[in-house]
Amino acid sequence: MFFTVFANEKLDPHVLPRPLILEYPEKVEIGLKQGDKEELQLKCSSWRVAGEANNLSPWKTIPSECGEYVKNYMMGRAYIVDLEMVSKEAENYAKSVELSSDGNDIWVFDVDETLLSNLPYYADHGYGLEVFDSTEFDKWVGKAMAPAIESSLKLYDELLGMGFKVFLLTGRSERHRSITIENLKKAGFRDWDKLILRESNKPADYLAGLGLGPIDFLSFVGPPIDRQLCMLVEEDANGTIALEDHGKTATVYKSEKRTEMAEDGYRIVGNSGDQWSDLLGTSMSDRSFKLPNPMYYIP
Amino acid sequence: MFFTVFANEKLDPHVLPRPLILEYPEKVEIGLKQGDKEELQLKCSSWRVAGEANNLSPWKTIPSECGEYVKNYMMGRAYIVDLEMVSKEAENYAKSVELSSDGNDIWVFDVDETLLSNLPYYADHGYGLEVFDSTEFDKWVGKAMAPAIESSLKLYDELLGMGFKVFLLTGRSERHRSITIENLKKAGFRDWDKLILRESNKPADYLAGLGLGPIDFLSFVGPPIDRQLCMLVEEDANGTIALEDHGKTATVYKSEKRTEMAEDGYRIVGNSGDQWSDLLGTSMSDRSFKLPNPMYYIP
Repeated sequence: MFFTVFANEKLDPHVLPRPLILEYPEKVEIGLKQGDKEELQLKCSSWRVAGEANNLSPWKTIPSECGEYVKNYMMGRAYIVDLEMVSKEAENYAKSVELSSDGNDIWVFDVDETLLSNLPYYADHGYGLEVFDSTEFDKWVGKAMAPAIESSLKLYDELLGMGFKVFLLTGRSERHRSITIENLKKAGFRDWDKLILRESNKPADYLAGLGLGPIDFLSFVGPPIDRQLCMLVEEDANGTIALEDHGKTATVYKSEKRTEMAEDGYRIVGNSGDQWSDLLGTSMSDRSFKLPNPMYYIP
Repeated sequence: MFFTVFANEKLDPHVLPRPLILEYPEKVEIGLKQGDKEELQLKCSSWRVAGEANNLSPWKTIPSECGEYVKNYMMGRAYIVDLEMVSKEAENYAKSVELSSDGNDIWVFDVDETLLSNLPYYADHGYGLEVFDSTEFDKWVGKAMAPAIESSLKLYDELLGMGFKVFLLTGRSERHRSITIENLKKAGFRDWDKLILRESNKPADYLAGLGLGPIDFLSFVGPPIDRQLCMLVEEDANGTIALEDHGKTATVYKSEKRTEMAEDGYRIVGNSGDQWSDLLGTSMSDRSFKLPNPMYYIP
């Protein structure tokens, strides 16, 4: 499996994992000679393409030397041309598929940087130079102002027209369901069949599974009762302790959800996402489409 | 699975498949505006990156508009910088792995465009603009003159030093075994544990499996006896009919060989290849490294 390396990550169980980006000890170094602009361009381009080809180890921020490169890429035509290329390939593939009459042919879309663009947010936060800040990002999500990625909206509408069912599978939390729906509709997306978000607020179920009753986490002092429990517990922006499937990597979470789709009788014909963790794992799609994203990495 | 689309390819069973590149009906079009050099650069770069991210449908030749772009990429520093980036990532990953004492940790390498460079050949054949010609390519292979990809040789030696066993898994035929060994040694590669090539000359076994005796294929006229048989039969450069596992896609062939490795008790810690068909399928490596190659595509 591509993702075994993540499973090997030795996370400190005392540190609560954040919802999107886990902390990695590795420092990103791409060995740049200072002052050589052309070499810098080559190296940063190489780093970006290595990411698109899933060759990079987990990373937390973009290489500091590549801030200007990533900004130029994201704000210039290259990003748009790359997005259009991937959408066009997806469309051509979709057209080549003979859909069955049972209506069970589905296309899975990720949301952030796949259907909706958070570029306005990342433009204010260094295009990936800054470490991900879930509190700040949640504020942005709460505005429901993320614009559509135009080429994805076009593909989305074409797929619906061809008779595909569309499933949205996102790493966003259930608590952001209504704001996510508002944002998607505002951006022009409609008629999805399912919107699957990460479940939350199930600590009671988990504790019951351990044979334990309710625990007041906020006042709990001492060694962790259960290593796994600490991995699964997350403190949200309001200070509320919630047990989510946030403790899983996106690869594991999205694989589980795809497996449920398959068990429900759906055929996952296509899958579009900006992260390899949207696409790899189990119950993979017949074909997957990796949208460009050099700004952040989700395992 | 990523590769189901290949399995769906409707191949004419009357046409004998060629060893490396299958024929596809699709014409590669990337929608270029003529005369806009910057736009051409953007589109060709987009096409190349889409290939590296496994977003493209099967293709037989590079887009004709991108001949100059691919030539410049392959002959300039960008290709070397990209190769070095991938090798460096692979090396860092390899160093992070704790090898077991049983000596069963292996690294799988593809050969062409992974360890050995056929760039001198492709430079004489349009860098992918020309349809693959197995007869011509076999002549080049026969010279055993392919140079090492330097960054791969460095990685290769480092892996041996770390205690990895190295397995070479190539789409080349068994009949090229000795010339391949000669070329690899000449280029500086040594001490591999296994060199796995595509088997050939087993038509008798296959026919026996069908309950049939020997058949003179060269004089056989009429409808194919067996669809699968026609898929598996290949005419080699000497006009000898041989039954190979050439009829399989590389994805299937290499997956089968990796599964055999796993069954033999080996742990496939890393896998380096320039084609996604080197890396995807079953019994995948813990981590895979996709070396750049915009010149040809093998399903």
